[in-house]
Amino acid sequence: MEFEKRLTEIADRVTVALDQLIPPAQGPEADLLRAMRHAALANGKRMRPFYVIETGALFEADDKTLLRTAAALECVHTYSLVHDDLPCMDDDDLRRGQPTVHKAFGEATAVLAGDALLTLAFKILASDETHPDPNVRLRLIERLADASGARGMVGGQMIDMLEDDSPRDLNTITRMQRMKTGALISYSVEAAGIIGGASENARQALAGFAQDLGLAYQIADDLLDATGDQAVVGKTLRSDAAAGKANFVTILGINGARERVRLLAAQAKQHLAFFHERAHILLQSVDYVLDRTR
Amino acid sequence: MEFEKRLTEIADRVTVALDQLIPPAQGPEADLLRAMRHAALANGKRMRPFYVIETGALFEADDKTLLRTAAALECVHTYSLVHDDLPCMDDDDLRRGQPTVHKAFGEATAVLAGDALLTLAFKILASDETHPDPNVRLRLIERLADASGARGMVGGQMIDMLEDDSPRDLNTITRMQRMKTGALISYSVEAAGIIGGASENARQALAGFAQDLGLAYQIADDLLDATGDQAVVGKTLRSDAAAGKANFVTILGINGARERVRLLAAQAKQHLAFFHERAHILLQSVDYVLDRTR
Repeated sequence: MEFEKRLTEIADRVTVALDQLIPPAQGPEADLLRAMRHAALANGKRMRPFYVIETGALFEADDKTLLRTAAALECVHTYSLVHDDLPCMDDDDLRRGQPTVHKAFGEATAVLAGDALLTLAFKILASDETHPDPNVRLRLIERLADASGARGMVGGQMIDMLEDDSPRDLNTITRMQRMKTGALISYSVEAAGIIGGASENARQALAGFAQDLGLAYQIADDLLDATGDQAVVGKTLRSDAAAGKANFVTILGINGARERVRLLAAQAKQHLAFFHERAHILLQSVDYVLDRTR
Repeated sequence: MEFEKRLTEIADRVTVALDQLIPPAQGPEADLLRAMRHAALANGKRMRPFYVIETGALFEADDKTLLRTAAALECVHTYSLVHDDLPCMDDDDLRRGQPTVHKAFGEATAVLAGDALLTLAFKILASDETHPDPNVRLRLIERLADASGARGMVGGQMIDMLEDDSPRDLNTITRMQRMKTGALISYSVEAAGIIGGASENARQALAGFAQDLGLAYQIADDLLDATGDQAVVGKTLRSDAAAGKANFVTILGINGARERVRLLAAQAKQHLAFFHERAHILLQSVDYVLDRTR
């Protein structure tokens, strides 16, 4: 499938870019850089970079700008995984098929490596190598801070951490996931629109697409957590069940969750109709989410 | 003393600005905002904001720009304290005269509050409310990322965390402190120079001033750690001794460390000669460092 070829190509390009953007592991602080590299250069799917770059292609946006923006976004996603895996958070030992950063380098280094990856993301976007127009770079920075900050990803993670006495319902979980994972997925297509100078109509189509896709992706993630093969997925599964946490699958059931993913995927595709045939790889990416195994 | 009046004035203005810039503690993620506010609105000396604003006054730079930049810098400083105080790092219970964030809100919330404060710093600087010229904002962002990232503050913290078998010598500690605390102090005067459009000569004078001041400040901090009154200082003291860690005082002795602070303070003042009488409050601030009690 053309989509899978593109996903692999983009993942490889982003890994090469991150290898160049993260400073080499030299000096007395080398362990910090090693930990950043361990986390960021591991074998991730690079879905967010994929959406930056494939969406940018709709507008024939500059390749280097898209790649650097995708790398910055992946730094933010990676830092959030490093911190979420900490013992005081989800306490996970396995990520992207390898030991988590605190398992490999210790907790203090994991905290600092996450901090440094987040900082690096903003440094990448601020550089004039990313885009010649300062206003484009500033918009990319401002929206990334919104998507990943206290009212975005980090706020969603906070809600997910709360030990609620009352069981969480579908609305609460949907809102939490829109912040925790949806905000960065939405940023991936929004950033492409900013770089490509998308029209207001195109931006709205992309925003609708990302919102449905992000939710479908998260429900698929919960399905994977409930039914997946840990050796294939490369991270600890059954974690919500182990923690007694409600998620989309515990509330909707496996069949109900699958039906919801199908519905959201169909809606996501409808938003892409705006772009006609040019969006065919993005359309294929939706089918991939429908049938996630890792 | 005029300096002390200005320091108090600036601290108050920065606290008010942070209160407005950190979102209110509302919504299901309210605990995250509460933790951010607990850390950022506490009674800090606000030395870095002081140096942004007082140095900016040398160039008659715009007040609002200086205040927002000072607030962003204080967000970064505060996040670094929140993460440094974590049990896996320095494991401190007391900060700015109150319980540390993880003591008051738990470890997970402390990690996330630090993350969100760092993110907020970049959001503040990216906003067109900070300065009308996009290139000034981008330069402030890029240099802040340099000063606080893997080759700056976070890298210095990493080196400080290393459990070395070989005892640390003066060169190692000096280099570590230049990164861990010196980089952000240097940023405070550099940012003012960027905002004020300082000449190359003025920038060099400021950079020299900040380097000597930063080191003097850190040695004074180690003296305070060894000889200060915990009730006045508002954070845990004797921590290096308890951890068996070498610092400037363990290497130079109390008298040697005091002599070094005097020497560095004299050098710092010489750099300010470039600005003549206009720098008289900055000059007074050097005397304050010489005689720190908190």
